[in-house]
Amino acid sequence: MNKVKVPDIIISRLPVYLRALQYMAANGSTTTSSQELGEKVGISAAQIRKDLSQFGEFGKQGTGYHIPFLIERLLQILKVEHVWDVVLVGMGELGNAILRYQGFENRGFRIVACFDNDPAKIGTKVADFTIDDAKNITEKVRAMGIKMAMLCVPASTAQDITDKLVEAGVKGVLNYAPVSLTVPSDVRLQYIHPVIGLQRMAYYLLAK
Amino acid sequence: MNKVKVPDIIISRLPVYLRALQYMAANGSTTTSSQELGEKVGISAAQIRKDLSQFGEFGKQGTGYHIPFLIERLLQILKVEHVWDVVLVGMGELGNAILRYQGFENRGFRIVACFDNDPAKIGTKVADFTIDDAKNITEKVRAMGIKMAMLCVPASTAQDITDKLVEAGVKGVLNYAPVSLTVPSDVRLQYIHPVIGLQRMAYYLLAK
Repeated sequence: MNKVKVPDIIISRLPVYLRALQYMAANGSTTTSSQELGEKVGISAAQIRKDLSQFGEFGKQGTGYHIPFLIERLLQILKVEHVWDVVLVGMGELGNAILRYQGFENRGFRIVACFDNDPAKIGTKVADFTIDDAKNITEKVRAMGIKMAMLCVPASTAQDITDKLVEAGVKGVLNYAPVSLTVPSDVRLQYIHPVIGLQRMAYYLLAK
Repeated sequence: MNKVKVPDIIISRLPVYLRALQYMAANGSTTTSSQELGEKVGISAAQIRKDLSQFGEFGKQGTGYHIPFLIERLLQILKVEHVWDVVLVGMGELGNAILRYQGFENRGFRIVACFDNDPAKIGTKVADFTIDDAKNITEKVRAMGIKMAMLCVPASTAQDITDKLVEAGVKGVLNYAPVSLTVPSDVRLQYIHPVIGLQRMAYYLLAK
């Protein structure tokens, strides 16, 4: 099975399936169907079956999916059976909201360090974290072996911080800063910004 | 040109191209190439040419793209030449950060109302907005004719608020709540959550 060939649009839906399945499991369900899952996530049953078929056989015609098995397989496929260490950079309101969010760890991620360049913030505590000086970011991130970063800094400093993270060995950057960034080809960059999401929806709202 | 047939993955990249082009324009550039644009956004030149070719001819071999023209066309394609009114629901830290963010309006969106169900927040001001009581959401959103919503409420209330927004005529919901939601088929639902972004990246980080 050559995973690199699975279209990115399918990969992008797997976390949504996983979340819905985990929610069902938490509510005591043990089986589901592509129809039921589809209704929960707003994606057609046929699309769900097609997406999952990229990774092998998950369900039987007529009996549906065994939820714990499907969750386990999706965790494996997405490589989140184990917890990834993540660095958070930029401790403004958004960074604070993310740092206080409790839902990362049981879904495969754990924030282990946070940085800012504001002297008024450096050394202060947010939740259980002490904000570290951004000037130490390369050496600390490298020393901790962190491979993933969330970037909540202003647009003006985003590329500089990204360069430092890449230098430190980070291979995945989730970018909240409202700016396009350049990374080497072996680094995965993903944009997460409300305007991007809104513009993508606007296309559909008047397209019909 | 049947826009409905353009794959969603292409639509999802257009806002990223648009942002990079607007950035170049703001810095005084008037022409670019698929190579240059590709370097800025981390997408191959061939992919950019293929994506844009879905919507007609934008550049000439050897002379590249005229940036103002390409921006104008992308604004048209994404239906953001005019400003969309948006309602924001849930005024926790994330809602506050979004409400204070200055970058919506010049990119096609304007927050016009915000709601919460916390009596301590209702009636207070954030930036230039007064937080309205969520129990009035259906009538107010309908009266204002708002078609787009950003949802920053806890998972436990997200479906209830979504139902009310849909009843009020909202056709696009950008969901920050960490839960899968159900909407009618004529409503566009988009998830925006760091775990989704991180899980999607994790797939690639170990896949090679």
